[in-house]
Amino acid sequence: MTLRFSFELKATDGKARNGVIKTPRGDVRTPAFMPVGTAATVKAMMPESVRATGADILLGNTYHLMLRPTAERIDRLGGLHKFMNWDRPILTDSGGFQVMSLAGLRKLTEKGVTFKSHIDGSKHELSPERSMEIQRLLGSDIVMCFDECPALPADRDRIAESMRLSMRWADRSREAFGDRPGHALFGIMQGGLERDLREESAEALKGIGFEGYAIGGLAVGEGQEAMFSCLDYAPDFLPDDKPRYLMGVGKPDDIVGAVARGIDMMDCVLPSRSGRTGQVFTRFGVVNIKNARHADDPRPLDEACSCPACSNYSRAYLHHVFRANEMISGMLLTWHNLHYFQEIMQGMRDAISAGTFETWQQQFHAQRAQGDIRPL
Amino acid sequence: MTLRFSFELKATDGKARNGVIKTPRGDVRTPAFMPVGTAATVKAMMPESVRATGADILLGNTYHLMLRPTAERIDRLGGLHKFMNWDRPILTDSGGFQVMSLAGLRKLTEKGVTFKSHIDGSKHELSPERSMEIQRLLGSDIVMCFDECPALPADRDRIAESMRLSMRWADRSREAFGDRPGHALFGIMQGGLERDLREESAEALKGIGFEGYAIGGLAVGEGQEAMFSCLDYAPDFLPDDKPRYLMGVGKPDDIVGAVARGIDMMDCVLPSRSGRTGQVFTRFGVVNIKNARHADDPRPLDEACSCPACSNYSRAYLHHVFRANEMISGMLLTWHNLHYFQEIMQGMRDAISAGTFETWQQQFHAQRAQGDIRPL
Repeated sequence: MTLRFSFELKATDGKARNGVIKTPRGDVRTPAFMPVGTAATVKAMMPESVRATGADILLGNTYHLMLRPTAERIDRLGGLHKFMNWDRPILTDSGGFQVMSLAGLRKLTEKGVTFKSHIDGSKHELSPERSMEIQRLLGSDIVMCFDECPALPADRDRIAESMRLSMRWADRSREAFGDRPGHALFGIMQGGLERDLREESAEALKGIGFEGYAIGGLAVGEGQEAMFSCLDYAPDFLPDDKPRYLMGVGKPDDIVGAVARGIDMMDCVLPSRSGRTGQVFTRFGVVNIKNARHADDPRPLDEACSCPACSNYSRAYLHHVFRANEMISGMLLTWHNLHYFQEIMQGMRDAISAGTFETWQQQFHAQRAQGDIRPL
Repeated sequence: MTLRFSFELKATDGKARNGVIKTPRGDVRTPAFMPVGTAATVKAMMPESVRATGADILLGNTYHLMLRPTAERIDRLGGLHKFMNWDRPILTDSGGFQVMSLAGLRKLTEKGVTFKSHIDGSKHELSPERSMEIQRLLGSDIVMCFDECPALPADRDRIAESMRLSMRWADRSREAFGDRPGHALFGIMQGGLERDLREESAEALKGIGFEGYAIGGLAVGEGQEAMFSCLDYAPDFLPDDKPRYLMGVGKPDDIVGAVARGIDMMDCVLPSRSGRTGQVFTRFGVVNIKNARHADDPRPLDEACSCPACSNYSRAYLHHVFRANEMISGMLLTWHNLHYFQEIMQGMRDAISAGTFETWQQQFHAQRAQGDIRPL
């Protein structure tokens, strides 16, 4: 156990990196996928089950938690880790992105943003200073700068203006964060799909100095090809010796492509949200469990998977409980999806470490191309 | 492990009985509470978690399972135990009660009942013979006779007529059940709140002969006092050397009162259904977790309870996730309720065995009378 926050790069293979983030609450093996625990729970999962899938770190959402149950309440109750029974690292976002996507009646100024809660219409304010305060009250291990993220496509002037505002906010976030040993503050690069704006943003962030650097403003509707084009250069603008976090990504092939381009951390609601809607990710692509072809199928989702859904249940059972709207459907499919995502991460970490990441990627894509097992 | 079904009475204390039902799939310690796994799942619970609460046996619902996924499908998939990943004993009801409470357009004749599915309106038939066939296809360890259960209050003629029909059906059920070593068929006493009809029913059942005897037609709206009055005499009409099962009961004090009157087995959806609606049962009575008094309360539901909800979470957290409509709310509160119900059963088994059941009951009622801990 360390009392400091640090990042150690252990191996590289091409641009792909294998390393470890050390925190007082435990190590985060990278590349890392962070399940999302929006409202102090990874939906449909017990935290010990999330850990059993191989997750080293969770993401919490500042926007949701500040509205309910509120950061002050969580602080009084001993912090988010204790509140939600997860004693390992937690990264919290800044709230900026979700204010833009969820809240009503937003008003954006240089100071910050005011908005109405999507839950009860109450009025709230977020600013770099308030976001840092909330994330401190939550007890977050990795704190994100407060930023603004325009939806794509947007015109270049809008993207540039927004990025420069986010850089001024990054400076204020750093200042407001203060000196908190064992805790990290990550800057967020913006700039849309404009290479020079990405570079300008990275330079601004490096000038301020952070414990890690995120790439924001992607996975917002631009498509995989455009995202990968940006990731072909954007990580190179960031320091080698700090973790690089791609926010809000993504599907399994997005994740693999991002790691191949030098990304160390990602988060996404996809495995948990899809688990609740019957969409299952396996080595052989996507399985839709509500499809009638599974109704009589005694086989597991993936015979090689060791998660509870695959170890103990047939596709027929999973189909049945999904159709019957039983909670165990979301519980089992979320568990499977999170397990599969973490297996991808472990596979990539091992392959990068062994210098066989190219071969690993070929196998990953070849299996997906095969498609699901044939109906009986 | 035994290949036979048997019941061994180990101790009595007053009318209360402690024993064990031996089946090829494992022992059922009595008095036993059976969680309800309606559609091949105890809602919001993994089966290994249900087992961890102390449950020896589950109840499955013939009516729900025959409609979806169908008994024939479950049979093709290897039976209900394998389908739902529960290898211990399962008792299935006959479908009769739920046809009356859930299905549409029922038509009752001497032969049986035709009805329309509440799920898709499709037409189905249940009879003693078909119910035995379905329960055999499911692979049930304890099969219930097909019966008719009138809602109370009902006039005496209606109750008598219905009871006599159920007794003719019990005879046909016994015949249709056939010879199935290791499996048990239970008869169901009817007769409403009419003592002589209960006795007539019991005599009819004993004349046929069953491996166990249920008391049906209670917990259907008559109230606790009326139910206990009936239980003051009805169990005495049944053989001492066979298990006695009170169907659909109940609240904690119903359960304790029933055991005091000689009941060995019970089932109820209450702990799981209440868990999903935020109603929590503790030693000190009922706690409604959505009440605002819990929002800032760092204390567990019950400091003496060892379930995950009480061991790892504050009332404030449970309040938060209930308000936020998070699945973990139903998962944790169901676990707690089932755990508490099983603790009551274990407490009663120990007390009966030790000859201290009267004292145990006094303490049970005294704690409940105290009420929940005071707000902070």
